[in-house]
Amino acid sequence: MGRTSDARQKILDAAHTLIEERGYAALGVAEICKAAGVPKGSFYYFFESKEALALTVVDEHWAVQQRDWAQVLSGDAPPLQRLRRLFEETEAGQRAGQQGCGTVAGCLFGNLSLELSNRTEAVRGRLQEIFDAQAGMVEAVVDEARVRGDVTVTDARESARAVLAQLEGQVMFAKLYNSTGRLTPLWDNCRALLGATGA
Amino acid sequence: MGRTSDARQKILDAAHTLIEERGYAALGVAEICKAAGVPKGSFYYFFESKEALALTVVDEHWAVQQRDWAQVLSGDAPPLQRLRRLFEETEAGQRAGQQGCGTVAGCLFGNLSLELSNRTEAVRGRLQEIFDAQAGMVEAVVDEARVRGDVTVTDARESARAVLAQLEGQVMFAKLYNSTGRLTPLWDNCRALLGATGA
Repeated sequence: MGRTSDARQKILDAAHTLIEERGYAALGVAEICKAAGVPKGSFYYFFESKEALALTVVDEHWAVQQRDWAQVLSGDAPPLQRLRRLFEETEAGQRAGQQGCGTVAGCLFGNLSLELSNRTEAVRGRLQEIFDAQAGMVEAVVDEARVRGDVTVTDARESARAVLAQLEGQVMFAKLYNSTGRLTPLWDNCRALLGATGA
Repeated sequence: MGRTSDARQKILDAAHTLIEERGYAALGVAEICKAAGVPKGSFYYFFESKEALALTVVDEHWAVQQRDWAQVLSGDAPPLQRLRRLFEETEAGQRAGQQGCGTVAGCLFGNLSLELSNRTEAVRGRLQEIFDAQAGMVEAVVDEARVRGDVTVTDARESARAVLAQLEGQVMFAKLYNSTGRLTPLWDNCRALLGATGA
């Protein structure tokens, strides 16, 4: 039982790394199993298909990120301070990734959105749910800030989407230019998008 | 001679469509030639490699887009009016694409940035040049607006990058949600990012 779970987790970890490095389409099951150090035959014991594997990788990554985001965005600090921490943590995470493997990996969900959303409806649906959940989390903080008069925007949902679009766009450029410095203006841009009133 | 050029162009057109639909990694040379209706053997007569083909597709697409952007962003209208037209044209282009094939294709350069920038340095370099050129074109218009007092931003280059990040991020969501409506807030977000002063 212990071994069985190990093999499944090894496949998931290897797939996560490989998808982040090279995307989904370029990968084969044999290669994933080789990187995971498990016999190729065992793959279909754990996963129905490569798509099922991708969905599980996405779910696992979101479970971790959702917990992180919830932690960063909660607490007693003023709402904009918490939102700012989200961008600082994102930049720190991308920088740590770059130091580890030499390149900025970008956002797994953004990468798969552009690679896969027109090719598999299951992945598209899951990614939509994740970005909806992200928008909901940011919206709640923007709404708190709005009630306090810290921002001038009136539509907290639309503003949250604008903030997430800015994040995904700058992460794209950080990956393309292999430069986490591209993420530094994120907070000023976010303040502009929200019409932040304070210093 | 006429026939030779035809075959090359047919390969390019088929590759462009297929890369937009399914990305680069998922494609094989045989499939591209089949879609183009040319014998597989002729591919390497025109292109050294699949990567060389991708670079040519990128160059061709940029040649057209650069001309369109230059036309939209030039003229006698006030600078922010010209910038607004750029977003309207982008939305119209994505809508036309969706009506044609059922799905929002997104931005070829953004798609390839996330799929390929960590895998081929040649494509990464070309896409960097293109986004630098786009930033330069937007920067010039923002700078005009700045001199007229139409915007409050002081760093026109950084603002241009923020505007392009917003564009790429919202185009990503338009593709993921298969909804060109995601592009409608672009202009308001752009105005906020630039600190536009007028109505």
